[in-house]
Amino acid sequence: MTRAIVIGGSRGIGKAISDSLVEIGFDVIATSKKDLDTSDLVSVKNFVNNHKDVDVLVLNTGGPPAKEFFSISEEEWQKYHNQLFLGFCIILKNISINEGGYIFLISSSVIKEPNPSLIISSAYRLAFSSVLKILSKNYAEKNISCINIAPGPINTARTKELIEDVKKYAKSLPMKRLGEPKEIGDFVGSIVQKKIKYLSGVVINFDGANSSCLF
Amino acid sequence: MTRAIVIGGSRGIGKAISDSLVEIGFDVIATSKKDLDTSDLVSVKNFVNNHKDVDVLVLNTGGPPAKEFFSISEEEWQKYHNQLFLGFCIILKNISINEGGYIFLISSSVIKEPNPSLIISSAYRLAFSSVLKILSKNYAEKNISCINIAPGPINTARTKELIEDVKKYAKSLPMKRLGEPKEIGDFVGSIVQKKIKYLSGVVINFDGANSSCLF
Amino acid sequence: MTRAIVIGGSRGIGKAISDSLVEIGFDVIATSKKDLDTSDLVSVKNFVNNHKDVDVLVLNTGGPPAKEFFSISEEEWQKYHNQLFLGFCIILKNISINEGGYIFLISSSVIKEPNPSLIISSAYRLAFSSVLKILSKNYAEKNISCINIAPGPINTARTKELIEDVKKYAKSLPMKRLGEPKEIGDFVGSIVQKKIKYLSGVVINFDGANSSCLF
Amino acid sequence: MTRAIVIGGSRGIGKAISDSLVEIGFDVIATSKKDLDTSDLVSVKNFVNNHKDVDVLVLNTGGPPAKEFFSISEEEWQKYHNQLFLGFCIILKNISINEGGYIFLISSSVIKEPNPSLIISSAYRLAFSSVLKILSKNYAEKNISCINIAPGPINTARTKELIEDVKKYAKSLPMKRLGEPKEIGDFVGSIVQKKIKYLSGVVINFDGANSSCLF
Repeated sequence: MTRAIVIGGSRGIGKAISDSLVEIGFDVIATSKKDLDTSDLVSVKNFVNNHKDVDVLVLNTGGPPAKEFFSISEEEWQKYHNQLFLGFCIILKNISINEGGYIFLISSSVIKEPNPSLIISSAYRLAFSSVLKILSKNYAEKNISCINIAPGPINTARTKELIEDVKKYAKSLPMKRLGEPKEIGDFVGSIVQKKIKYLSGVVINFDGANSSCLF
Repeated sequence: MTRAIVIGGSRGIGKAISDSLVEIGFDVIATSKKDLDTSDLVSVKNFVNNHKDVDVLVLNTGGPPAKEFFSISEEEWQKYHNQLFLGFCIILKNISINEGGYIFLISSSVIKEPNPSLIISSAYRLAFSSVLKILSKNYAEKNISCINIAPGPINTARTKELIEDVKKYAKSLPMKRLGEPKEIGDFVGSIVQKKIKYLSGVVINFDGANSSCLF
Repeated sequence: MTRAIVIGGSRGIGKAISDSLVEIGFDVIATSKKDLDTSDLVSVKNFVNNHKDVDVLVLNTGGPPAKEFFSISEEEWQKYHNQLFLGFCIILKNISINEGGYIFLISSSVIKEPNPSLIISSAYRLAFSSVLKILSKNYAEKNISCINIAPGPINTARTKELIEDVKKYAKSLPMKRLGEPKEIGDFVGSIVQKKIKYLSGVVINFDGANSSCLF
Repeated sequence: MTRAIVIGGSRGIGKAISDSLVEIGFDVIATSKKDLDTSDLVSVKNFVNNHKDVDVLVLNTGGPPAKEFFSISEEEWQKYHNQLFLGFCIILKNISINEGGYIFLISSSVIKEPNPSLIISSAYRLAFSSVLKILSKNYAEKNISCINIAPGPINTARTKELIEDVKKYAKSLPMKRLGEPKEIGDFVGSIVQKKIKYLSGVVINFDGANSSCLF
C-alpha cells in the first residue's frame, strides 16, 4: 500500500487527509478542481482514463452554494447530481481499488440531519452514502474497507462562506470551536497506518457532539 | 379538501391509494405511465402545466429493473435520477398544495436498508426522502403534512418481477405473507379522512416487522 | 376483536386512544395510576393476575420529572426502570395478546433525539422500544402488529408541566401548535378499525415535522 | 494525559484496548470481573470510592447469556440492568474525567439491529448509549470526547460462546472473518495518541460491513 488519490485534496479537509497520508509514506495524488471537476463528466472520464487503480481513494468534494428548494433550477440539480453523485459513481466503476485498500467518503452531517439551505448537498451526499454502504459488502471480499466520514462544522473556507459570524457560531457549539481539518486527516491516516480493516460500511459523524440524533 | 393526484395510480399501491381516496369522496386524478412518465422531464413539464394545485398529492412511481452497480450505465443513472428524484422535484416546485393538504411519498424499505440489486432505487428514493423531510418544515406553515411511507414486500406486479418464488419468499417473512396494497391505501385514506395533521416529516416503515433496524 | 387495555388511559394521549377505541365499539379498560402503577411491580403483578388476555394493548405511561443526569439517584433510576421498562416487560410476559391483535407503545420523540433534562425517559423508553422491535417478529406469527408511536410536543398536562411558556413554545414549532391527543387517538383507532396489520415493527414519529433526524 | 481505566480490561476487546493504551505510555488500570463486577452495585461503589478521576475511561463489560424474552425473569432484568446500565451510570456520576480526556463505550451492533436472543443486551446497551449521547454535550465543555464503539462479530471468547460453528459463521461474513480485538484496540489508541477530539457524541459501527442499516 503506497498510492493514494485524494479528490479535492488541494485544500480544507482533503488537503489535511493528503498531508496525513504523505506523512505515513504514501505517494498521494491530491487533485484540485482544475485537475478534476466532478461536476463535469468529461473531466471525470479523462481522470479515470489516467488512473486505473489505487490503494487508498478519498472521495471528497465541495458542495454547492446555499440555496432553498424553490429557487433551484433543473440545471443546478443536474450539475450537482454530477458533482456529488454521478462523478463518484463513474470513478468507482472505473478505478480499481487494490486488495487491502480503503475508500473514504467525506460526506457531511447533513446526510442524517438534512439542512434546508443545503438541500442539494443533503440529498445527493446521502444518495451516494447509500451506494457506498451497498458496495462495502462487495469490497469486503477484497479486504477493502469503505468508511464514510460525515463532518459537522469544520474550520474550512467553505464554513466561512456558509456562516456569517463564524466566531459567534463556533462559541455556540458544544466544544466551543469548529473541528480542525487536521483531526480528520489524522483520523484517516491512523486507520490506514494501523491497517484497521474491520471498520467498514460505517458512517462516522465527526461533529464535536453537535448532532441531535442518537445514531 | 376534495381533489387528489396519485402518480402511478393505475395499479399496485398507487391504485389502492386512489381507490381509498375515491371512497372517501375525493376527485382523484390517478396517472398511469402514459399520462405522466416521471423519467421524461418533458412529460413532467406538460403535466405540471395542466395541474396548478391540489389538496392531496401522492408521489409514487415504479422502480428500475434490478441491476448491480458495476453494470449500470451513465444513461441509466440519469434516467432514474429523473424518474425517482428530479421529476418529483419539478412536480413539487410547480404544483401548489392547498392549505391543510397532504403530500404522501411512497418510497421503499431500501431507503433504510439499502439493497445491492436495487441500488438505483436505494440511492434516489433516499435522496428524495431527504428533500421531503426538509420541505415538511416549510409545508407545516400551511398546515400541509408530508408523510413518507416506506413499504417492504407488498403484493404487487413489481414484487413478482423482482422475486423468483414469491410464495416461498412470502412464507419466509415474519407475517408469512406479503403486505396488501389495500393496507397502504386504507392507511392513507384514514389519515386524510380523519384530518390527522401532526403526522408529518416522518418516514413510516410498512413492512410487516421485516426490517432489522430499530429505526 | 372487542377488548382493549389502555394503560395510562385516564388522561392525555391514553385517554384519547381509549375514547377512539370505545367509539369503534371496543370494550376498553383504561387504567389510571391508582388502578395500575407501572413503577410498582406489586401493582403490576396484581394487574396481570386479573387480565389474562386482550385484543389490543396500549402501553402508555407518564414520564418522570425533568432531571439532569448528575442529580439522579440510584433509587430514581430503579423506580423509573420499573415504570418505563420492567413493568411493561412483565405485562407483555403475562398478558396474552389474541391472534390478530395489536400492541401500541406510546414512547416519545426523545428515543431518537435524546433530551438532557429527560434523560431517564430517553434511556428507558428507548430500551423498551428495542424490546418491542424484537418481539414484533414473534408476534407477527400470530398476526399481531406492534406499533411504536413516538410523540413530539403534544397538548397534554405533562407538556404544560415541562414547558414554561407553552404558548410561546407552540408558536416556535413548525406547525405553530402542539399536537392534539385526539390526532393520536384517531390514528390508533383507524388502524385498528381498518385492520391494517402490515404496519408492524415500526417506530412512528408523531411530531408535526419537528424532529431534525431524517429517520 | 497519562491515566486510564479500562473496565473489563482483562480479556477480549477490553484487553486489546488496555494493551494499546499501555503501548502509547498510559498507566492503565484494567479491571477484571473480580476487581469490579458492574452487576453488583456494592462492587461498583467500592470501585468509585477508590478512583476519583481519570483521563481515559473505557466502559466495557460482557453481556448476559443468550436468552429469549419470555424466559427472562424479573431478577435477571434487574441484574443486567445493573451490569449494562446502572453500574456505568454510577461510575460516570462518581469518577471525574479530566479536562481533555475521553470516555469510550464498547456497546454492540445490537443497539441498532436488535437481536432476539440478545434482547437484554440490545435493550440496556442501547439505553446507556442514549445516556452517553446526552452527556457528550456536557463533557464537550471540558473538551472530553465521548465515543461509542458498536462492535459486530469480534474474535472473542464471548463470540465463541454465542455461536456454535464460529468458523462457518466467519466465512458467512462480508470480510470472511471475525474482527480482531486488536483492531479496536489500535483504533482507540490512535484516537487518544493523536488527540483527535472532535470525534464525539458518535456511535461507530465496527462490524466489517456486516450491518444492513445505512446508519
